[in-house]
Amino acid sequence: MSDIAPSLGDLPTPCLVLDRSKMDRNLTRMLKRAETLGVRLRPHCKTAKSAEVARLALGGEVGPITVSTMREAQYFAENGFSDITLAVGISPSRLGQAADLLARGVDLTVITDNAVIAGEIVAAGKARGVTFAVMIEVDVGEHRAGIDAHAPELLEIAAIVAEGGQELRGILAHGGHTYGCRTPEAVAEIAEQERAGAVLAAERLRQAGHACPVVSVGSTPGALFARSLDGVTEMRPGVYMFMDLFQSGVGCCGLEDIAVTVMASITNLRPEQGTAIIDAGALALSKDRSTQALPRDCDFGLLTDAFGRPLPGLTVEAVHQEHGRIGGAGADPAVLPIGSRVHVLPNHVCMTAAMYDRYAVVDGLERGPNQPVVAFWERVNGW
Amino acid sequence: MSDIAPSLGDLPTPCLVLDRSKMDRNLTRMLKRAETLGVRLRPHCKTAKSAEVARLALGGEVGPITVSTMREAQYFAENGFSDITLAVGISPSRLGQAADLLARGVDLTVITDNAVIAGEIVAAGKARGVTFAVMIEVDVGEHRAGIDAHAPELLEIAAIVAEGGQELRGILAHGGHTYGCRTPEAVAEIAEQERAGAVLAAERLRQAGHACPVVSVGSTPGALFARSLDGVTEMRPGVYMFMDLFQSGVGCCGLEDIAVTVMASITNLRPEQGTAIIDAGALALSKDRSTQALPRDCDFGLLTDAFGRPLPGLTVEAVHQEHGRIGGAGADPAVLPIGSRVHVLPNHVCMTAAMYDRYAVVDGLERGPNQPVVAFWERVNGW
Repeated sequence: MSDIAPSLGDLPTPCLVLDRSKMDRNLTRMLKRAETLGVRLRPHCKTAKSAEVARLALGGEVGPITVSTMREAQYFAENGFSDITLAVGISPSRLGQAADLLARGVDLTVITDNAVIAGEIVAAGKARGVTFAVMIEVDVGEHRAGIDAHAPELLEIAAIVAEGGQELRGILAHGGHTYGCRTPEAVAEIAEQERAGAVLAAERLRQAGHACPVVSVGSTPGALFARSLDGVTEMRPGVYMFMDLFQSGVGCCGLEDIAVTVMASITNLRPEQGTAIIDAGALALSKDRSTQALPRDCDFGLLTDAFGRPLPGLTVEAVHQEHGRIGGAGADPAVLPIGSRVHVLPNHVCMTAAMYDRYAVVDGLERGPNQPVVAFWERVNGW
Repeated sequence: MSDIAPSLGDLPTPCLVLDRSKMDRNLTRMLKRAETLGVRLRPHCKTAKSAEVARLALGGEVGPITVSTMREAQYFAENGFSDITLAVGISPSRLGQAADLLARGVDLTVITDNAVIAGEIVAAGKARGVTFAVMIEVDVGEHRAGIDAHAPELLEIAAIVAEGGQELRGILAHGGHTYGCRTPEAVAEIAEQERAGAVLAAERLRQAGHACPVVSVGSTPGALFARSLDGVTEMRPGVYMFMDLFQSGVGCCGLEDIAVTVMASITNLRPEQGTAIIDAGALALSKDRSTQALPRDCDFGLLTDAFGRPLPGLTVEAVHQEHGRIGGAGADPAVLPIGSRVHVLPNHVCMTAAMYDRYAVVDGLERGPNQPVVAFWERVNGW
């Protein structure tokens, strides 16, 4: 590979490819949605895990973001982001690192849903001489984490935080059960549950004398199909930046909006079996099978040729650690000569992208192996 | 965390923990098996991806190893390993990197199962002025990659390699369909298919005038339960180093032999639902569900407490990106107070370990949070 202006054909496979043109459309769409809904966009960076992508998601500048791990928080802080919400219930084992970020001037918000950890936050704040900004996670029906908006514990946690000298910043909800919806109408119903639950919890805090300036909701389907976010101050979608087969199946996008693919090479072809082998398997694609629950099961991913043209009827039907087997009813993999390249559209891009430490960025795939790589953007994985 | 002699309780979660005592027993067992079977052990490093582990697997010194990616080959070469077999069909996109390793004096063997790529290997060898060592992959019944031992193409590929001035080193087979077995007897049958197919292919090469010095087979179940490896020169098991729930389910080990766990913290408890939340989810554990096919489905993993004591009846029953939900019939997660730690035994350790860039190494878990971490060993992920 030449050091200057490589093209896709120069890159060894498997390789994570990001089509900036498609991503830009996805980013613009969500910026407009936030404007229409009258809320601040605090994009969730758990999918992209990239400072370059986060800046573009905010219209080209640093701004408020959401992260899912402490390592992401540290990475984005190092890259100039100073307003960060860690939207996964904080583990006591991470309070020291959180305090370090606060001491460096990063406005990091942590969340919890129980009095035990609220007490640990207070203790750590006092011990480290910092003031934690804390949001209380409310369960709006997904039953993953969070407390019910009506629960007595809501005020108990708020009191522990406030009386412990920490800053109670507000309410956070995640209507992740939108992922179980199959129509925009059903998503809109859940988005309304999410809004109503978050606003109710915020009102309860305010009635108890707390300020509660932030009311935060978020999922990509909810952000796209919510009818109103009255009373909400911000939303935190993430996967919309890249989209994937699952989001397409739920109706959030078309296949042509999926901005991230795994480029792979055909290493074997068995025309008599109707199968081919690619050098992208369980690690390169992830074992995510979320589309199994959708009307169109995409196995381990759909395919395009090297130029981004769909290969209808073909899927990655099985994976081993470093092998993917292409097959499909009625399809002839003999259109895929050994040594040629394909792109795999991921079921769940958050899982797939997490296997790579960088993106090869392109503006479209129309030139196939001759498509120039305009940049390499790093990702931050792990914890 | 102190810089000197941290203990497990000092480490933020999620964290990949390697119990060296258990691993040592697994390594010794396989060294003895190779001796008993009269073959060389060429351990597959796709699971551990660690130079420290590879050395221990070879009895404390560098020696012949197997890898699954070019990045592993490069990493192990940098760490002093000079006899490396890349046991996944070589992609033409990787021939340049392979040639670079050969030019640096690394004895790298590549494999293929088709004439097209054999031709590419010859062309690359001539263009780069190196001699590739090539093994031909034979399909012994798994039908993933490889050609049938009886196929005419076997001699065709051999001729391309030899006449093209490259070194035909031998035959490689992988009886991966041992993973479908449920008894040692069934594994032994497949191991015999694997042996017979590899030896037949080697004999065909020899009859055609090729040397074929290496006849290589390998899978952990096959290595443990093969009755004979007559005619085979080496075996390439990998997952035996750590073992996992799938291997336990197939009968290769007991739960007490699983040497790698994910340490996680309880961040939420819902006694009324019988569930708890840990900070290890789909990324920290992987979405591997291979135990679904076994009599005992372990969901996303079984659990021990912080001291390595089993928590019977509990599993990680659901995962989101950074959340795992613990539950289980008849179990009371109220034994897991918020803030306490657990260890998750992985379904498929190759998938789980791949999410981490290092191991926290311990000698047992008996001291729980006070267990000293004796080393951190790096892993090489990606491609």
